[in-house]
Amino acid sequence: MYYPINEIFQTIQGEGYYTGTPSIFIRLQGCPVHCKWCDTKYTWKCNNEDQISYEKIIMKKKSNRKWSYMNVKEIILIIKIKKWTAKHIVITGGEPCLYNLLEITKELEKEDYKCQIETSGTELIKCSLNTWITLSPKINKKTLKTSILRSNEIKYPVLKKEDLFYLNSILKKIKNKKHNLIFLQPISQNEEALNICIKTCIIKNWRLSVQIHKYLKIR
Amino acid sequence: MYYPINEIFQTIQGEGYYTGTPSIFIRLQGCPVHCKWCDTKYTWKCNNEDQISYEKIIMKKKSNRKWSYMNVKEIILIIKIKKWTAKHIVITGGEPCLYNLLEITKELEKEDYKCQIETSGTELIKCSLNTWITLSPKINKKTLKTSILRSNEIKYPVLKKEDLFYLNSILKKIKNKKHNLIFLQPISQNEEALNICIKTCIIKNWRLSVQIHKYLKIR
Repeated sequence: MYYPINEIFQTIQGEGYYTGTPSIFIRLQGCPVHCKWCDTKYTWKCNNEDQISYEKIIMKKKSNRKWSYMNVKEIILIIKIKKWTAKHIVITGGEPCLYNLLEITKELEKEDYKCQIETSGTELIKCSLNTWITLSPKINKKTLKTSILRSNEIKYPVLKKEDLFYLNSILKKIKNKKHNLIFLQPISQNEEALNICIKTCIIKNWRLSVQIHKYLKIR
Repeated sequence: MYYPINEIFQTIQGEGYYTGTPSIFIRLQGCPVHCKWCDTKYTWKCNNEDQISYEKIIMKKKSNRKWSYMNVKEIILIIKIKKWTAKHIVITGGEPCLYNLLEITKELEKEDYKCQIETSGTELIKCSLNTWITLSPKINKKTLKTSILRSNEIKYPVLKKEDLFYLNSILKKIKNKKHNLIFLQPISQNEEALNICIKTCIIKNWRLSVQIHKYLKIR
């Protein structure tokens, strides 16, 4: 199976449960969610004219709309050529669950990688059972109940207090499934959002996720 | 049993495995380790003239050498009076394992708290089985093998490349016990130390711990 890849790079996971974990990020092209504050808007459209060769994807120095189809063998080949050592793979986007991720997660697991998917939960999640699902529900977007139930952690972006109402409505949907890993993440290091997240985390005993890579100024 | 308490406060755990977790920090007085870069030197000495009433400890606005004896009941009473909601307790210091922590950890667990101890591993660890041990070995200090084996995570402070030799010597001592949670933490947000930690984490597949509370400027 071929996947539209925007970029692939090795760094440190800066968010949520796996904060601090060396990771290979595979960013897929395409997203119908379109959050106002999105920091990867270049992944929204999957235009033919932006399609380039997969060699050029590897040499990408800065993020842009260009993408290339790759199958899992080619992805693994890139990791080997680049001699990347991280054993944790984050499949992100865009909205990666636009695509069937069963093959890619299973093949990568055969190569002894741990897979994580970062998704908005607006699409059906198709992947291996061992894949760690990070769900980031988005306000005014339909978060599928199956996605909520399948998620291993909820990493919820917050800008203002009212944003928390939507999270509470989601948690009500799964009241019998006690979700113990909930992270609040201030959007774009906004100071006010940070204070709201800290206060709420302490009251609700949720966890705070800050995008450490942005504080450390690494990719 | 009475413990010499330097300060007790509620905040967000900024380091290691529990990064982002709302926590109540109980800082004990006394430490024989004396690291050059220590950011709580005020806990080193347990002088009688610095002893104050336990009410005054609660009102402490800034960190200093003053301390007070408290038993577990009094500690729990403070948490209730202050209406703190965090359910994770970090017993730190100074070097908390100077003291027998069995009683305090067991009593707190009866109250449905999860306990974590942050220790240099230079003292025998006496605490409940469920307590999460964060071991921060210190160069030129004798890290007890029992402490290494008992630890749930190693959170290793790094300033320069040579610091890593000591960590490797420690890991050799426990080679048959595969330790899967190793964090490298740059000392005092030092830029060079951060780069050494990122590079080493990626090569060794260890995890990066940055003191997020210092980036967020919270206690």
